Amino acid sequence: MENSTFIRMIKVVLFGAGNVGTRFYQAMNNNDGIVVTQWFNRSLSAMTLAGPNTICTNDLDDLEPADLYLLAVADDALPELVEKIPVGSAVVAHTAGSLSIELLEKHPNHGVLYPLQTLSKKRDLPFDQIPLCIEANHNKADKILRQIATALGAPAQTIDSRQRQALHVAAVFVNNFTNSLFAQGERLCAEHQVDFGILQPLILETAQKVQRLLPQQAQTGPAIRNDQSTIEKHLQLLNDPIQKKIYQLLTHAIQHKHD
Amino acid sequence: MENSTFIRMIKVVLFGAGNVGTRFYQAMNNNDGIVVTQWFNRSLSAMTLAGPNTICTNDLDDLEPADLYLLAVADDALPELVEKIPVGSAVVAHTAGSLSIELLEKHPNHGVLYPLQTLSKKRDLPFDQIPLCIEANHNKADKILRQIATALGAPAQTIDSRQRQALHVAAVFVNNFTNSLFAQGERLCAEHQVDFGILQPLILETAQKVQRLLPQQAQTGPAIRNDQSTIEKHLQLLNDPIQKKIYQLLTHAIQHKHD
Repeated sequence: MENSTFIRMIKVVLFGAGNVGTRFYQAMNNNDGIVVTQWFNRSLSAMTLAGPNTICTNDLDDLEPADLYLLAVADDALPELVEKIPVGSAVVAHTAGSLSIELLEKHPNHGVLYPLQTLSKKRDLPFDQIPLCIEANHNKADKILRQIATALGAPAQTIDSRQRQALHVAAVFVNNFTNSLFAQGERLCAEHQVDFGILQPLILETAQKVQRLLPQQAQTGPAIRNDQSTIEKHLQLLNDPIQKKIYQLLTHAIQHKHD
Repeated sequence: MENSTFIRMIKVVLFGAGNVGTRFYQAMNNNDGIVVTQWFNRSLSAMTLAGPNTICTNDLDDLEPADLYLLAVADDALPELVEKIPVGSAVVAHTAGSLSIELLEKHPNHGVLYPLQTLSKKRDLPFDQIPLCIEANHNKADKILRQIATALGAPAQTIDSRQRQALHVAAVFVNNFTNSLFAQGERLCAEHQVDFGILQPLILETAQKVQRLLPQQAQTGPAIRNDQSTIEKHLQLLNDPIQKKIYQLLTHAIQHKHD
């Protein structure tokens, strides 16, 4: 049935079976528009989730032709793969936030498909919650990467390498550093024999608030109110010198930026 | 119909029409187990949401008898109210995180009902998302405050003044400071011409993750991985000296605490 309504499946060879690779595999393998023909990983045992239509391999000499070679591997494993993948018309794309598109220059059609999320093998987050940052050297790579995003139901945006590197830093602030503040809350709870669960609704609401408001509009608390007496009480209560420093620096940041 | 199945409505006189007072008013006024007979606020115009069964007043000489005088006012307005409320058998309770229960000693039955949430007049957050920290000097106050929590469907916990003050600081970390990190993300987006919306799913997922895991287990990113090359790239990208300091301090906090 080769007519204009026929939509060809995108053939993907996927590299990497860490958190990012595994999430991409599962979403793509369960998708009508995409077929993962091969899944490459150094260790075969990491690919136990592979479906019957996917050939697992750890041998780069085995690679088959595909529309897209998607490199979801650790940053330091990328250069070797980029060298060894056969140069041809296939699109080659990496998924790394902090690496430039230029790393892939050897391949005539190349791009980046960076998922701006915290992904984990264990947690099946739907792709409509995973913004995909797309960069491409030419139209061909752009088109394939957008087709992948559309098939997965993921919001997609054109983001250049400089912007992506800035977003990678922003992600460290709003994800890694935010989680480290949750950990400080956890420590304060433990120190005072309170279950951490009591903070969970507040944490969730804090995140939900900035789904509607910009953070600068959502800022509350003693720092923005310039409530010096509460700030001093809080500093007195803190025993840990690192917690004190964080309290002082973030109070300063809130007051300084909102002057 | 005065038999054992008859459950008496709790009569409340509520003080304060700010964010906390207004949220309590709306929840209590729409509740079958509670009647707010009077609502006190210095400015009458802040109480436009009052229902037909509630008398609004700004005159402390007008106060009527009640089961509970609930003081949801600013910290510095509390001492005056505590003095002027008629001393009797009614329970007097405040809602402040950082103030001790002892402030209410003048009244024979007193306690604290501290909502551990970020509340706003505009946002109608259900009370099952608002943990209530309860402290009471005797059984009578404890019973009334627990009845209020049960009627509102709020999770309630006994929390003493020292614990509550620690939770107040923990709330600054997980809410105010967390939001300030979101604001740093917002600034990085603006600086690089990216819409802040692209960070919203990551922010939500970061909060959702610690609804199931403890923050120390959920920690990811270059700091915990000791990925010095990414850390240095990030520091080079940051132009704002305060952002640099936050990056360094929180990276140190993550590495130090997980050694």
